[in-house]
Amino acid sequence: MANVINDLVNYDGIKIVQNDDYFNFSLDSILLPNFVSLKSNIKEIVDFGCGNCPIDIILSLKTKSDVRITGIEVQKEVYELAKETLKINGLENRINLINDDIKNVTDYFNTDSVDVVVSNPPYFKKQDDSNINENYVKAIARHEIMITLEDIIYKAKVILKNGGVLALVHRTDRLIDIITLMKQNNIEPKCIRFIYPKVNTESNLVLIEGTKNGKTGLKILNPLIVHNSDGSYTPEVMDMFNNE
Amino acid sequence: MANVINDLVNYDGIKIVQNDDYFNFSLDSILLPNFVSLKSNIKEIVDFGCGNCPIDIILSLKTKSDVRITGIEVQKEVYELAKETLKINGLENRINLINDDIKNVTDYFNTDSVDVVVSNPPYFKKQDDSNINENYVKAIARHEIMITLEDIIYKAKVILKNGGVLALVHRTDRLIDIITLMKQNNIEPKCIRFIYPKVNTESNLVLIEGTKNGKTGLKILNPLIVHNSDGSYTPEVMDMFNNE
Repeated sequence: MANVINDLVNYDGIKIVQNDDYFNFSLDSILLPNFVSLKSNIKEIVDFGCGNCPIDIILSLKTKSDVRITGIEVQKEVYELAKETLKINGLENRINLINDDIKNVTDYFNTDSVDVVVSNPPYFKKQDDSNINENYVKAIARHEIMITLEDIIYKAKVILKNGGVLALVHRTDRLIDIITLMKQNNIEPKCIRFIYPKVNTESNLVLIEGTKNGKTGLKILNPLIVHNSDGSYTPEVMDMFNNE
Repeated sequence: MANVINDLVNYDGIKIVQNDDYFNFSLDSILLPNFVSLKSNIKEIVDFGCGNCPIDIILSLKTKSDVRITGIEVQKEVYELAKETLKINGLENRINLINDDIKNVTDYFNTDSVDVVVSNPPYFKKQDDSNINENYVKAIARHEIMITLEDIIYKAKVILKNGGVLALVHRTDRLIDIITLMKQNNIEPKCIRFIYPKVNTESNLVLIEGTKNGKTGLKILNPLIVHNSDGSYTPEVMDMFNNE
């Protein structure tokens, strides 16, 4: 199996090791690290289900070098790609990788210890699509086979410190589940941004950030429109691709 | 006290009796009746806290004449304005008015009997602003003095039939409360539209519709932008004012 090396468009020259048989780098991975609050005093960031770690790489460009960034990836094959990506880009010492199930996260992190948890979780419930991807590696990234949204939010709550933030990118139609689960786990939804493919379409993706034991009070940021009416990327999205 | 008669901009020539000492007709009142789902088989619509009944008047233009529309208004002075408005416009037989507290709604409607409940409720919690409006009539319309969001959603649940819809316009920062209360009352949030003053600003208002005992699955409609960058109304909002 050959690993295809793609040059992520102008992303500070960083190369991401991808394999088209797996789940590849996408817009979602760029949106999340550009959305999450990164306060100047944070020390520890954890990415639940990091894939080939595009989110962590972008976060490494946005944080000071003493911020520990750790990606957890359950799939051995994907974890290997991520390791290769970090090596090519000289980021092995900046980003830690763990090849394990998110359910075991407390084997690696103390409770109430982490500043930021990010996740681009599997988007689909198992029952949503009986026609689950035949490629099992892709299926695990797309469907809640190994981990559910409930597990992700619960485990985030456990390792986050008081006032720590959980930021997710997810399909908009899961918003009510996300809000309900955050509230159940004392993670107060504080900031949401909706992604609209075009200005006249429904939202398909949502960025949401909650604070552990935070006060109530929600902001809905300005809409993020991905494409102009001619299909080209809007200036804001182009700037994200160019890391501007 | 003179009642000022304002001509609602081109709104099919309908005149709304207003008094500037009270809470006046605003964009919110136009947004809600343009948002709510009005299926062809509905028979009964109730407006909780109808004010001078702009929502009901617009709904009367959008529904067949055999659909019963009832506005409930607790404040005697505002109820009198609403009555006058209906008389001037010859709508006394089309729209019913009740001068009572929403908490007594089951004195007028059977449980599980209503197709649609709409409400533009008081926006502020009592504690949100110690500086509550000195004009008590305005204060009751703006602050949760006589009725809370919890009461409104609970009473809507009681009178709505199975599959009936509750549609609200509210401040965006109350969204989590609305979703939580709807879920607690088995009203499933199905459709949301965010209102943004401009394309680059946070959302200040939200339109939300839920279905009693509905299945999960939420749509976020395309963003509703009120103003162009030069401050003029966008074409969509102008069309609503012109009832197009």
